[in-house]
Amino acid sequence: MRWWGWGDPARAPELPAGALRYLSPRLGSAPRASPPVALASVQLPGTALGRATLASLRAIVGDGAVREDRAERVAHAAGRGYPDLVRLRSGQLEAAPDAVVLPGSHDQVRALLELCAARSVAVVPFGGGTSVVGGVAPLRGSHEAVLALDMRRMGQLVDLDLSSLTVSVQGGMRAAALERYLQARTLTLGHFPQSFEYVSLGGCVATRSAGQASSGYGSIDKMVLGLRLAAPAGDIELPAIPATAAGPGLRQLLVGSEGTLGVIDRLALRVRPAPQERIYEGFFFPDFAAGTEALRALAQQHAMPEVARLSDEQETQTSLAFAGAGRIRDALGRVYLGARGYRRGCLAILGFEGVARELGERRRRARALVRGGGGLAVGRSAGEAWVRSRFMAPYLRDELLTHGILVETLETAAQWSDLTRLHREVGHAIRHALGAAGTPGLVMCHVSHLYETGASLYFTFLAPRRQDDELGQWQAVKQAASRTIVDGGGTITHHHAVGRDHAPWMDAEVGAASLSALRALKRELDPEAIMNPGKLLG
Amino acid sequence: MRWWGWGDPARAPELPAGALRYLSPRLGSAPRASPPVALASVQLPGTALGRATLASLRAIVGDGAVREDRAERVAHAAGRGYPDLVRLRSGQLEAAPDAVVLPGSHDQVRALLELCAARSVAVVPFGGGTSVVGGVAPLRGSHEAVLALDMRRMGQLVDLDLSSLTVSVQGGMRAAALERYLQARTLTLGHFPQSFEYVSLGGCVATRSAGQASSGYGSIDKMVLGLRLAAPAGDIELPAIPATAAGPGLRQLLVGSEGTLGVIDRLALRVRPAPQERIYEGFFFPDFAAGTEALRALAQQHAMPEVARLSDEQETQTSLAFAGAGRIRDALGRVYLGARGYRRGCLAILGFEGVARELGERRRRARALVRGGGGLAVGRSAGEAWVRSRFMAPYLRDELLTHGILVETLETAAQWSDLTRLHREVGHAIRHALGAAGTPGLVMCHVSHLYETGASLYFTFLAPRRQDDELGQWQAVKQAASRTIVDGGGTITHHHAVGRDHAPWMDAEVGAASLSALRALKRELDPEAIMNPGKLLG
Repeated sequence: MRWWGWGDPARAPELPAGALRYLSPRLGSAPRASPPVALASVQLPGTALGRATLASLRAIVGDGAVREDRAERVAHAAGRGYPDLVRLRSGQLEAAPDAVVLPGSHDQVRALLELCAARSVAVVPFGGGTSVVGGVAPLRGSHEAVLALDMRRMGQLVDLDLSSLTVSVQGGMRAAALERYLQARTLTLGHFPQSFEYVSLGGCVATRSAGQASSGYGSIDKMVLGLRLAAPAGDIELPAIPATAAGPGLRQLLVGSEGTLGVIDRLALRVRPAPQERIYEGFFFPDFAAGTEALRALAQQHAMPEVARLSDEQETQTSLAFAGAGRIRDALGRVYLGARGYRRGCLAILGFEGVARELGERRRRARALVRGGGGLAVGRSAGEAWVRSRFMAPYLRDELLTHGILVETLETAAQWSDLTRLHREVGHAIRHALGAAGTPGLVMCHVSHLYETGASLYFTFLAPRRQDDELGQWQAVKQAASRTIVDGGGTITHHHAVGRDHAPWMDAEVGAASLSALRALKRELDPEAIMNPGKLLG
Repeated sequence: MRWWGWGDPARAPELPAGALRYLSPRLGSAPRASPPVALASVQLPGTALGRATLASLRAIVGDGAVREDRAERVAHAAGRGYPDLVRLRSGQLEAAPDAVVLPGSHDQVRALLELCAARSVAVVPFGGGTSVVGGVAPLRGSHEAVLALDMRRMGQLVDLDLSSLTVSVQGGMRAAALERYLQARTLTLGHFPQSFEYVSLGGCVATRSAGQASSGYGSIDKMVLGLRLAAPAGDIELPAIPATAAGPGLRQLLVGSEGTLGVIDRLALRVRPAPQERIYEGFFFPDFAAGTEALRALAQQHAMPEVARLSDEQETQTSLAFAGAGRIRDALGRVYLGARGYRRGCLAILGFEGVARELGERRRRARALVRGGGGLAVGRSAGEAWVRSRFMAPYLRDELLTHGILVETLETAAQWSDLTRLHREVGHAIRHALGAAGTPGLVMCHVSHLYETGASLYFTFLAPRRQDDELGQWQAVKQAASRTIVDGGGTITHHHAVGRDHAPWMDAEVGAASLSALRALKRELDPEAIMNPGKLLG
């Protein structure tokens, strides 16, 4: 991944021609181009690790597996949230790990944690490094130094149990590598977060990740059957079982622990037969409320698609503008001609995956419900366009930043009865905060990740970067949106996790007694508080 | 519920005529009739509560809501596991609550917990009182006295959110009362444990209950969207949301807490549209392995029934014998005549619930998979017979005990790849232990509660009661079965919970570090350790 932004430079797309043309008149002021600095210009503090500790680290993992070079330290200095990108691109890092350490085995992870506990060194577990909530920020808390514990050497498949449809992997295995392995055996995990190309499976579990197809395949917490946590105080090892009533849900307690209790270095996941057929298609709804009601019907009436996303009016317009002369627009030509009531409507993408007959039956039920809810089918090309571009947004974000445009996303989930109100209120809060910062912008949203009782809302907002105070600008919007979410019955995060950015909202989310309980748990498993300081529990 | 056994005496069925005829020659020695003693003969210790504490309790909940009479104390002195029944029927209680207290509100629950923490009084939360693992045993730990905190006055529905298909109830609401309320509104919770007629919903959540239809509707943990725990140190209140990535899974941490952290006095549950159609039918498989493979196919290939249970050869024979001239036998007459290969086979009951077309499609897929796996349809009468008798087993257990026959059940769950081996090993362990106790008996099992990656195994065993050492006889078998389960890759309990009986096995189940973590959590939420001593964590 390129050090100042997202992904493989060779794959980075150009900003669509129509994008800036569409955005410029809609942003309150003219953005100013702002490319990233050169790697050599990044200000990097010297390492705080003494020779003795470095030697001990090398004794555990081997000489080549303790890195202190600029490229590695910068690559582990930040995740990929907006504040991360701002800091990286400006070369003004807040902090950097004193070293990057690459364990090759569970025993090495254990030895590292014990050494770090003894030497007052904080440890930041590092998988794909794609956190958008400050989850891998190299904070040292009250410790002398901080390490990034990079799991990339622990990326192996351990076992595939075909009868039980269960795969066991090391925590550092990439989601993409596992998916390739499974698809070669006509299986799938079905976990496709936008960060799919980079994320590790241990990272997905630690952050309670949900993929784009979670309506059908479930979020990662639904897939975890067992896992091993290497904590400073000891290992928790929970084998793969389909279900248990043996007390509190320990597996679900470790899912979402965000590296603050220990390192998830092995996990067992449920897999499924690979779909024999995939149908992604577009539908147009007269408005957001009608589309939301239709998605609710799908979720509650045996017609759940694997992927479902409904863009609000603004996101629909923006998508069409960005798509330029592409297929979505072609497909929608028919709509514009044929059904004028849909001109300012909302685009939904539904994706069905499975075996032919079951898929066909479910899709037929879904299409009937969509039609009954005022939806108009606009064909597969819109769906296929979405599939092609499903991992592209973070690349485009880099391009927009270079053009001087702030682009950020945030998400929540709520019960169906709260959803349209929350959509309205959070949208308003973001727009208001952008205006108050002197940078009016665009706010848009989609519903996705359906459940029987509710769904998630995923907001994207764009505005000119306020280059005198970029982090302040971002913080004001984040604050306003978060307050509105927690006051309005939503969760502070549906799938981005807590990290540093949402930690101040955990009290509002779970209450003081829950936080005390989680802190007691942390004291037991991580008595020196070396694990990922400043995240999750503040 | 009658004080010495199960259920409503008016509903208690006679033991089928064929039952004893079938059992007698198959048990190693002749059982000796052993009816329960009279209530007046039960030995009940005096109350250990002082006048001042009793007055304080009355000041909180009102005079009529603190009970010290014999009937209430005996009714709260035990659950409904085999050791409970042995003690109740003999009148030799191990212990009894010093009083039974009935709070009427959350504030009263809070005040009770705070008083009890201050006065060193242990608290046993009590819902339906149906625990079969010693979960409501009135143990006082190191405290002066022990209360049963009966939730029956907190049995109200709080809210029904039709749009979100979510119901909120007080913790003491009975599952049966909620189901009646929902069915009047064409909704269902879909939660039907064998104890359905008595259980409270708070109790179901606290014990991680799974109903007979959990293959389709999910176990209770899948239904919990939010809950409130009144703990001595404070409240944890988690509102209803469909999903969240805000850190560790707190909802799942409280599900299964078994009253050891606090009292679950409110909960929000997902409901579903009531089925428009129900089809329960029987199938016969040539052997247990073939049937198990067929169930696996249903679970993994889009054909999951709401209810699935496959009896092994012994359970099939016993069921047919108990059914006497009933409908199952009639239905099977055809099998005996038409397909001799199935004569010693295994009976499976599959139950499909839903809306007509979806149900029809799913059932057609299921029947094709069953046929492909060697299954023979034996019609709906077998399925309907099961539905009629689904809550009857605990009544029959009482009758068998009166006839001098030990009858007990235990269960586990495991991955599909472990299931048939575990069935063999656990069955062998139980048979061997019964033989070693000098009371050879019958051991039988069914597979139920299907998941994509595995299923549960539910064992029933019968033997002559060894009246000189009934608890020792039971303990020896329990010990042997539990050891075999934890060594063989199964969980110590799929849906009976931990309580007192499985507490010694928690270390094998979750490991020392997990137990330390759970104990740290308990110290935080229940610093005086008044909540349900001796359960779950030992």
